[in-house]
Amino acid sequence: MGNGKIKAAIVGASGYSGEELIRLISKHPDYQITVITSRKNAMAPVGDVFPRFASSGLFFSDPDIKQIVSSSDVAFLALPHGLAAEFAIPLLEAGLKVLDISADFRLKSVAKYIEYYKAEHPAPALLEKAVYGLPERYRGKIRSASLIACAGCYPTSCILATAPLLAAGLASPTGIVISSASGVTGAGRKVELPYIFPECNESFRAYSPVGHRHTPEIEQELAAAAGLPEITLNFIPHLAPMNRGINTTVILDRTAKTSVESVAAAYEAAYKDEPFVRVLPHGKCSDTKNVTMSNICEIGFTVDPRTSKVIVTSAIDNLTKGASGQALQCANIMFGLDETSGLR
Amino acid sequence: MGNGKIKAAIVGASGYSGEELIRLISKHPDYQITVITSRKNAMAPVGDVFPRFASSGLFFSDPDIKQIVSSSDVAFLALPHGLAAEFAIPLLEAGLKVLDISADFRLKSVAKYIEYYKAEHPAPALLEKAVYGLPERYRGKIRSASLIACAGCYPTSCILATAPLLAAGLASPTGIVISSASGVTGAGRKVELPYIFPECNESFRAYSPVGHRHTPEIEQELAAAAGLPEITLNFIPHLAPMNRGINTTVILDRTAKTSVESVAAAYEAAYKDEPFVRVLPHGKCSDTKNVTMSNICEIGFTVDPRTSKVIVTSAIDNLTKGASGQALQCANIMFGLDETSGLR
Amino acid sequence: MGNGKIKAAIVGASGYSGEELIRLISKHPDYQITVITSRKNAMAPVGDVFPRFASSGLFFSDPDIKQIVSSSDVAFLALPHGLAAEFAIPLLEAGLKVLDISADFRLKSVAKYIEYYKAEHPAPALLEKAVYGLPERYRGKIRSASLIACAGCYPTSCILATAPLLAAGLASPTGIVISSASGVTGAGRKVELPYIFPECNESFRAYSPVGHRHTPEIEQELAAAAGLPEITLNFIPHLAPMNRGINTTVILDRTAKTSVESVAAAYEAAYKDEPFVRVLPHGKCSDTKNVTMSNICEIGFTVDPRTSKVIVTSAIDNLTKGASGQALQCANIMFGLDETSGLR
Amino acid sequence: MGNGKIKAAIVGASGYSGEELIRLISKHPDYQITVITSRKNAMAPVGDVFPRFASSGLFFSDPDIKQIVSSSDVAFLALPHGLAAEFAIPLLEAGLKVLDISADFRLKSVAKYIEYYKAEHPAPALLEKAVYGLPERYRGKIRSASLIACAGCYPTSCILATAPLLAAGLASPTGIVISSASGVTGAGRKVELPYIFPECNESFRAYSPVGHRHTPEIEQELAAAAGLPEITLNFIPHLAPMNRGINTTVILDRTAKTSVESVAAAYEAAYKDEPFVRVLPHGKCSDTKNVTMSNICEIGFTVDPRTSKVIVTSAIDNLTKGASGQALQCANIMFGLDETSGLR
Repeated sequence: MGNGKIKAAIVGASGYSGEELIRLISKHPDYQITVITSRKNAMAPVGDVFPRFASSGLFFSDPDIKQIVSSSDVAFLALPHGLAAEFAIPLLEAGLKVLDISADFRLKSVAKYIEYYKAEHPAPALLEKAVYGLPERYRGKIRSASLIACAGCYPTSCILATAPLLAAGLASPTGIVISSASGVTGAGRKVELPYIFPECNESFRAYSPVGHRHTPEIEQELAAAAGLPEITLNFIPHLAPMNRGINTTVILDRTAKTSVESVAAAYEAAYKDEPFVRVLPHGKCSDTKNVTMSNICEIGFTVDPRTSKVIVTSAIDNLTKGASGQALQCANIMFGLDETSGLR
Repeated sequence: MGNGKIKAAIVGASGYSGEELIRLISKHPDYQITVITSRKNAMAPVGDVFPRFASSGLFFSDPDIKQIVSSSDVAFLALPHGLAAEFAIPLLEAGLKVLDISADFRLKSVAKYIEYYKAEHPAPALLEKAVYGLPERYRGKIRSASLIACAGCYPTSCILATAPLLAAGLASPTGIVISSASGVTGAGRKVELPYIFPECNESFRAYSPVGHRHTPEIEQELAAAAGLPEITLNFIPHLAPMNRGINTTVILDRTAKTSVESVAAAYEAAYKDEPFVRVLPHGKCSDTKNVTMSNICEIGFTVDPRTSKVIVTSAIDNLTKGASGQALQCANIMFGLDETSGLR
Repeated sequence: MGNGKIKAAIVGASGYSGEELIRLISKHPDYQITVITSRKNAMAPVGDVFPRFASSGLFFSDPDIKQIVSSSDVAFLALPHGLAAEFAIPLLEAGLKVLDISADFRLKSVAKYIEYYKAEHPAPALLEKAVYGLPERYRGKIRSASLIACAGCYPTSCILATAPLLAAGLASPTGIVISSASGVTGAGRKVELPYIFPECNESFRAYSPVGHRHTPEIEQELAAAAGLPEITLNFIPHLAPMNRGINTTVILDRTAKTSVESVAAAYEAAYKDEPFVRVLPHGKCSDTKNVTMSNICEIGFTVDPRTSKVIVTSAIDNLTKGASGQALQCANIMFGLDETSGLR
Repeated sequence: MGNGKIKAAIVGASGYSGEELIRLISKHPDYQITVITSRKNAMAPVGDVFPRFASSGLFFSDPDIKQIVSSSDVAFLALPHGLAAEFAIPLLEAGLKVLDISADFRLKSVAKYIEYYKAEHPAPALLEKAVYGLPERYRGKIRSASLIACAGCYPTSCILATAPLLAAGLASPTGIVISSASGVTGAGRKVELPYIFPECNESFRAYSPVGHRHTPEIEQELAAAAGLPEITLNFIPHLAPMNRGINTTVILDRTAKTSVESVAAAYEAAYKDEPFVRVLPHGKCSDTKNVTMSNICEIGFTVDPRTSKVIVTSAIDNLTKGASGQALQCANIMFGLDETSGLR
């Protein structure tokens, strides 16, 4: 293993985010996968769970902190919240860099975590250390971080769409309404009745119209963008009959400064050097099919003078930019690599 | 033909609304189809265009006013807007009842028609005569009408979801935001690149985020419900990868009177005797798959005290309750039949 | 209940066949549903399991032989094989007519049942009494039967496609190859990993290429059609990313008598008076979308002189003609009703 | 352009194969795209036609032989048959390597071309020069070829599944039956009624059950594998409601030598060093979702002693291994690169 590659452990890899991590990291020129853990599939070839990797020669192992520590420079945690923190603590202590795809370190407020996740916070002492893993907002901090709380899938699409307008005073921070639709991999690889094919196909439905766990995460980050202590908004997720992709529609009140030109300029300023954000011309709308299997966020905006609103749409692949691709983007930054390496 | 059945012409029947009219009326015990017109398919068996009806023995004919008049009591117009009015004029003069599925007679304001449809109104003199074809709102007027402007697909879902709250003062008439998603039959049987399978499948996208033609229709009817001269709102449609179904999410500001109980009571009062509206318990969301191939509108509502909003979801089949089923429901009323006849 | 309607029990109604039985029988003018059983949903409103029936006022009850017997004339069994026979025995003894949608009484050979279902036959004494529920083949026997073994979904499409050719000596009974594709409701309402949306969508796969349980059923019935003691063939099912529908492709060796005309004539003779079979012109292929939500079987055939084969395609809705619609068709026959009643 | 990269022209790039070529070649470390032609989109940014490439900076140009010749080492032709040959002639004369994705050079027999493509052959003199572009069969010849007739999508899956068995005498070359299903991108980016979303979704159908143009191509290559002058077989394609992927099921008669072990050994011998073929354990079936967006062909086989058949299934991505990925694989071979370069 003295090949100079970064040694990466993927912890909890039997879901779709784990599969996407394996896909991205296994072909990455600068990383080498050392451990892929799955309690329930320990010892099984990865190809048994994900036939796509049948020729990979990779095997799942039982999660073992010592083994991860001794073999790896970095750990990607694709574990349920709560459990992720349990792994993060010893891995950080042992000096590994940790990219957590769960929600354990996203919320700065322990109270909000308790309110939305209905559990004590598993590692409040680490919250200060954790950097929110959205490079377009926190690239500098990510560079020197050891613990990344990778941004949630819906939040990534919502924040990238909205933050530049709030930061530039081109939209009101009050009364924001967000309507998002996600493909079914967004629910994870859950074997439950609502997710079997005949219950999802030819079905479009809202769920958790109030109280979705991504709401406080979106509010926290948009408040930061607006320079406010707090923002309260409505976030309404929907399930769409497709595998991958999130499309978000944000409706905001304009301000006195809002115009097609000023909005376009704000996005240009925010994203002109961003490798993974694409802003469409005024009036065009984003489309999930333009971004699936990529790390791109596509953003469209329309100013509606009749109603004094700005309507922003944004599309990402929930498993790539919304989870594993973004984690890898953050890792690239942490290790001083080209940020786009392995993600084009 | 002296069988006492109502003689029905279906005019312009080569699209999906036409197909749905044929499906519903051909098995209806009280109607008999006399004419099915299609300019481009004249003389062809209906089964050539819609294989589902291969054994029906039905044929398309070239549209001919005289033939329609001489053979029919009622005409269902599934024509493009503009053309629909051209047929409506002589058919009404000849004493037929006319149910127009196009948009020609929906807007009371000629100015709005011109603004949104980019054309002169084809028959302004008939506007006063036309009754908006949404039985849950205008049953009485429909009973004695001769010209029905059948409600649009999106408007049906939006109005049924929202009107009772506005009428009861349980939601503010300002700042209403509506996000809807439709299956691809909503675009008609259009042979255009954006609608071929690989461009729609695994795709979710907004379109016409400003200026969709259904916007003034929704505004007109919600203003009427609120008892106001005008309402201005945002309506943002999306295309979802499924055949049939519209799911609408409406976000409204609550008022001082709004509570779970008052909202539930308003829906109960509005819909308890309605055969085609189903209101879910508080907190549940509508789902297109529960209503496809039916004339039902399913409504869910959630009061969000944190944001002072009411979130309403509603689902219909765009071709049934959103078009042809509703036209038939109106016709049943006009002819004094059981309103649900042929629609259960 | 003295309304002269036939009193029908639906036993084991929490799957998709059960839902389809409720859909069809609840709107049927000549039947009245008396009992709908589901062990795991006992006492729950049917609308809780199938939201489509939320306004139906129907409730599930715990399966109780006495209650079924005292309230019903006929029982439709939508139970797993093995369990179905346990219910059939006492219901038949009590004088009810029984339509079994499971496989318990389809195979005349107990040995084949044991071989393919890996279990002792639960009621061999009833096998002689059972009539195979495919009206196009056994209408006369169905009329006077008390126990119907409703034909399986794949077998229905295979037998209707093939039997007339074998009966007329227009295809060889040896070397028959059948390749079928089914929508995912064909797997039942199973909550298992292979059936969650992301595992089925964008997936097409064969399964059980050897030894599928429908193979001996197809062989039994095609042998009967050919007037032979036995036929051996290959039946290879596939799973397609859609909800409903089976499309079957049968490849047969021609005989000396085979021609486009003779094949067309054989189908004409077999099906010209059949209300639920539609034969396409030579060279056309069946399509599931032409038959979903209907009780129709659509058949296409092509004679290939180059290879000396006949290629037959057939499409049905697996839940309607492939299960519940066909059961109702059989019941209509048993009770002397118009066979198409409630099924148009 | 003195960067040492291979200069590649993509000619006729406005369809799905063209899009896939752009996707694969633009990120390939050893190639540089010099020209992307599209008559109807000349001068337009590639991102206008394929939004996925909006940030690519690539433009379409009008096809111009001189420009292609002066700027390129190799041309990938994604043109309709007939037109492809017109471009191939001058490009070859000018010394370019040409990879033709059309059917113009696949059939060795001009008579077969005329019979199946209903046109004179556009360049019979080149047929001898052309090498069939299926590396697993013709790697040596491809290495020194200048003109590659890239294998068709269906033929790739059929030949890879079947050739090793015929070559090893483990299956009879007579009576072969092939049933394949393809996603809708297989029809190209055709804007025609049968391919709009509502006509494909919830639809599974056979088409061209006799005389599909890929039939003689499959027969030619399987005859070669069997060492016979000719093979006659049945090939029946189906359309499945998904974007990408072909799954093929081949049913063959066994021979005296056929056993699970001998078949497994034949595949092992043929493919153990092949980077893009994966053979599953006996009894398992291939699945399109395991290979989409990859250049892999997944093969499953089952020996059926009861019927004396071998059943082989194979899955590919029709746009990758079935078209553009395979073209790139061939190009890698022609230029002496690692065959898998840019294709992992």
